[in-house]
Amino acid sequence: MTRSRREEVVDVALELFAERGYRGTSLDAIAAKVGLTRQGVLHYFPNKKRLLVEILRRREELNREHLLAEHAGEDWPGQMAEVVAYDHEHPGLARVYSVLMAESVTEGHPAQEYFRDHYATVRERMVRGFTERWGERLPSGLTPRAAATALLALLDGMQQQWLLDREQADHPEIIEDVLTVLFGLRR
Amino acid sequence: MTRSRREEVVDVALELFAERGYRGTSLDAIAAKVGLTRQGVLHYFPNKKRLLVEILRRREELNREHLLAEHAGEDWPGQMAEVVAYDHEHPGLARVYSVLMAESVTEGHPAQEYFRDHYATVRERMVRGFTERWGERLPSGLTPRAAATALLALLDGMQQQWLLDREQADHPEIIEDVLTVLFGLRR
Repeated sequence: MTRSRREEVVDVALELFAERGYRGTSLDAIAAKVGLTRQGVLHYFPNKKRLLVEILRRREELNREHLLAEHAGEDWPGQMAEVVAYDHEHPGLARVYSVLMAESVTEGHPAQEYFRDHYATVRERMVRGFTERWGERLPSGLTPRAAATALLALLDGMQQQWLLDREQADHPEIIEDVLTVLFGLRR
Repeated sequence: MTRSRREEVVDVALELFAERGYRGTSLDAIAAKVGLTRQGVLHYFPNKKRLLVEILRRREELNREHLLAEHAGEDWPGQMAEVVAYDHEHPGLARVYSVLMAESVTEGHPAQEYFRDHYATVRERMVRGFTERWGERLPSGLTPRAAATALLALLDGMQQQWLLDREQADHPEIIEDVLTVLFGLRR
């Protein structure tokens, strides 16, 4: 049962970080909700920061942006629409990611370096993928760097809008249409 | 001096909200930094939430998105580049806005309704502006709703990337190129 209790701690931390932010969540609150003592939680994670790292790592496993750059092709805006639809079905992870990302620009936040490196790495990987496929200009005329920056911004920004108003069910279609235009692909 | 002391309270609150988030900032911390007692701050603002509203109102005054929709035209991507460049010269307001916006999706956050209404209002205004100018399809083929959603997402998402890494000095040009393609305007 050790493994599943550890998973339970991660799940509860994810939920509370999404509800109250990283800084607004104490180890005691996590412990209380799991039904452990503070020492019990510390058995699995020596401090709150290690829990944060675990959650970011879990998100990383979904690894969606990496996948994207490597498979950039004609039907790729449609694949992206599926990714957005998937996020809408799993709002917990989307919300914790959005909250932690924005919180990370505050002073001395433990996730700041993670997000800075994460963006730099994903953007570079996309730029490489786009350049291999299309050279110095995409069919739309944009540079690979402009397209990668815009794509990441669209995913983050649209997720933010959707988190505030989940009635917006048309985001998958919007991302498909917008990327088709932005990259200059066939409709 | 009453007016300027009040302004000082707002400036300090803005700074601390950006550094630590709304929830991570106490009225006592704001008071200490202004050099007032807690009672002194309460003289100007009856509670922390009223300070939050004041800061959101101030950002609203810049009113940039509203301006945009009404002046949407051929040279409009260039105007947007200027808006982004302006934000880069005033990172404090950009940061507090980004932090508050993401924090607002946490449970019971006092700015949640503000941001939900704000997006809905700005998006509707843009959709009206685009429809008046171009009808049901922009020159690129996108619907006014898709273009408005994407434009807001691009502004927010690119700002987030820039807040994490301020070396990215080419964001104004990227936004200009991306919007030119997205709207299907002349290069």
